[in-house]
Amino acid sequence: MSDGLVFVRRIRRTPYTDRVEQAGVRGFSVYNHMILPKTFGMTVEEAYRHLREHVQIWDVSVQRQVEISGPDAAKLVQWMTPRDLSRAEVGRCYYVPIVDQSGGMLNDPVLLKLAEDRFWLSIADSDLLLYVKGLIIGRGLDAAAFEPDVSPLAIQGPKAEDLMAELFGEDIRALKFYRFTHVDFMGTRQVVARSGFSTMDGFEIYLDNGALGPALWDTVMEAGQKYQIAPGGPNQIDRIEGGMLGFGNEMTSENNPLEMGFGKLCKLDGTIDCIGLDALRRINHAGLTRMIRGVKFGDAPCPACATPWPVMVGGRQVGQVTSAVWSPGLNANVGLSLIDREHWDQGTEVTVSLPDGAVQGGSVQVLPFS
Amino acid sequence: MSDGLVFVRRIRRTPYTDRVEQAGVRGFSVYNHMILPKTFGMTVEEAYRHLREHVQIWDVSVQRQVEISGPDAAKLVQWMTPRDLSRAEVGRCYYVPIVDQSGGMLNDPVLLKLAEDRFWLSIADSDLLLYVKGLIIGRGLDAAAFEPDVSPLAIQGPKAEDLMAELFGEDIRALKFYRFTHVDFMGTRQVVARSGFSTMDGFEIYLDNGALGPALWDTVMEAGQKYQIAPGGPNQIDRIEGGMLGFGNEMTSENNPLEMGFGKLCKLDGTIDCIGLDALRRINHAGLTRMIRGVKFGDAPCPACATPWPVMVGGRQVGQVTSAVWSPGLNANVGLSLIDREHWDQGTEVTVSLPDGAVQGGSVQVLPFS
Repeated sequence: MSDGLVFVRRIRRTPYTDRVEQAGVRGFSVYNHMILPKTFGMTVEEAYRHLREHVQIWDVSVQRQVEISGPDAAKLVQWMTPRDLSRAEVGRCYYVPIVDQSGGMLNDPVLLKLAEDRFWLSIADSDLLLYVKGLIIGRGLDAAAFEPDVSPLAIQGPKAEDLMAELFGEDIRALKFYRFTHVDFMGTRQVVARSGFSTMDGFEIYLDNGALGPALWDTVMEAGQKYQIAPGGPNQIDRIEGGMLGFGNEMTSENNPLEMGFGKLCKLDGTIDCIGLDALRRINHAGLTRMIRGVKFGDAPCPACATPWPVMVGGRQVGQVTSAVWSPGLNANVGLSLIDREHWDQGTEVTVSLPDGAVQGGSVQVLPFS
Repeated sequence: MSDGLVFVRRIRRTPYTDRVEQAGVRGFSVYNHMILPKTFGMTVEEAYRHLREHVQIWDVSVQRQVEISGPDAAKLVQWMTPRDLSRAEVGRCYYVPIVDQSGGMLNDPVLLKLAEDRFWLSIADSDLLLYVKGLIIGRGLDAAAFEPDVSPLAIQGPKAEDLMAELFGEDIRALKFYRFTHVDFMGTRQVVARSGFSTMDGFEIYLDNGALGPALWDTVMEAGQKYQIAPGGPNQIDRIEGGMLGFGNEMTSENNPLEMGFGKLCKLDGTIDCIGLDALRRINHAGLTRMIRGVKFGDAPCPACATPWPVMVGGRQVGQVTSAVWSPGLNANVGLSLIDREHWDQGTEVTVSLPDGAVQGGSVQVLPFS
């Protein structure tokens, strides 16, 4: 597909896209009808090493917010997830699997509790706003839902704290993981969370007002020079080694949160009222038949995983790799795969069938890879 | 963005993607989390001329189906659209704007009535299935909704009828526009509609069972040789000249169906029960403040329209072009734009401001262009 993507308004640019293009973006994705920059001048491996040592700036505007507010907002948010939110606090972030009546996953956003009656769901790649609208209209709830003009910018890497302290003051150092606070930027009040789609330390600035995007990008880049800041994006090596799952890749509506390893987040004892509770209880009672695992395989870099690759044991398929990349540290490919119960133990020997017909030997690994 | 799109499982391949790649696809888009091929060896203008003379095969698998069935299916479908479906017949297609409580458009699918209690919504680029699930769960309806393994293949152009008759028998010639019937393919029963996203004659084969994709592509291509068939995709010149609107381009949830020219499809007299009725009645009563129009402008080809371009009259913005392309027949650029009431008459002189700072003069045109 040599000429590549045809750009149209339907695939939205972000408040940072002008700067991203000036910075020499080379590889990108489309996510929530919007451009997600992934690679710049460095190879994925070079970007991985840089991320572990310095600090990067990522345009993750594609993490759109579904804002829910009103008298029924808290009830609605709890209804949407099997995670118990009865003690949820303002100022905290919560990873919340969203499931339908069958227990199938529809999205896996991060919830920001802004107030007792106001929430953001920072979403993965599906139009969760439409689901929320359907629930509100269908049940006649007293709540409003919309997509605000909020475009997260991620600052990721071990030097992120120093950079953020320089930008927004020393207090930001005390911010704990998955908490958020407010900072001032050019006279506006902005949400900053300690979070991000990497295994490194990092922050996400939920920029509210796209018109400030170029100024925020420039401010971060300028202050970041002494920390060797570089533009980047979610890194495939870091993500897969760390066992971070991607909605649409590792999980779809065919998957339940229990088999994706989120069982501890699911309160199934009947004390909360949520969609899919009965289905999840049935699945849990019957016992899981498969579970997400890592697969370490091969001694030469695999291609990009654009379709699931069969994972085999003795001529029988026992799973499918849905994301994979060469890990320089482990000197093998690392992949993510659901694996059938009989074969999910650490070290089980498997083979992976690549699309070109090659078969690479490997073994099952409990996540994260180590 | 030179290296282009990074392929991952989340951006799904279609049952025809292998064949599309073999046929030399060059430009593509991402639509409903899936690959939409747009251009092959020909320029857009060459493809436009070919489409008007011969026949083309388009992989429009991205037109995913939301299947709704069950005792409450008909009630739900009617509730979702202001179009009166009380006399809808099995075997017919209906263009149905879907709006929320504010009258904002969420999608503009084609409805296929498969049975009194079973429907397909052939969707534009938003996850309408999530909205349907939300409505079903929220209202407690007795209906099921899912995405079947159905991947439409479009056969478009003046020779489409001859080709289809050769493939599926002479009876297909009698199929009227926006009707569907069933044909046999390799022992399977498949839905074929007389429809498609072009201004030419054409058909869409709703292939049910992706495993048959390569065989169907090959069968069509082989029989199509004598009709000079070529692979293609929705053609920007044909689409814009014909005034065909694209969801996400010309319309978003910020737009209502009345200003998009679908007023005649909206039954606002209170005889049907649908979401957004009150909002649409208020909008209609107040009178429209803007309406979709064409703009003919400039004497040199414009770039691709990736962000809205201001349409100006005497220093004041009166609209924004959301799609545009050079029309060889009209010897000018043609664009689609909402235009404020005071300026929406045929022939009103305007200017269009391009992203590079250039300003091109032009005029408002009633759609379709002529």
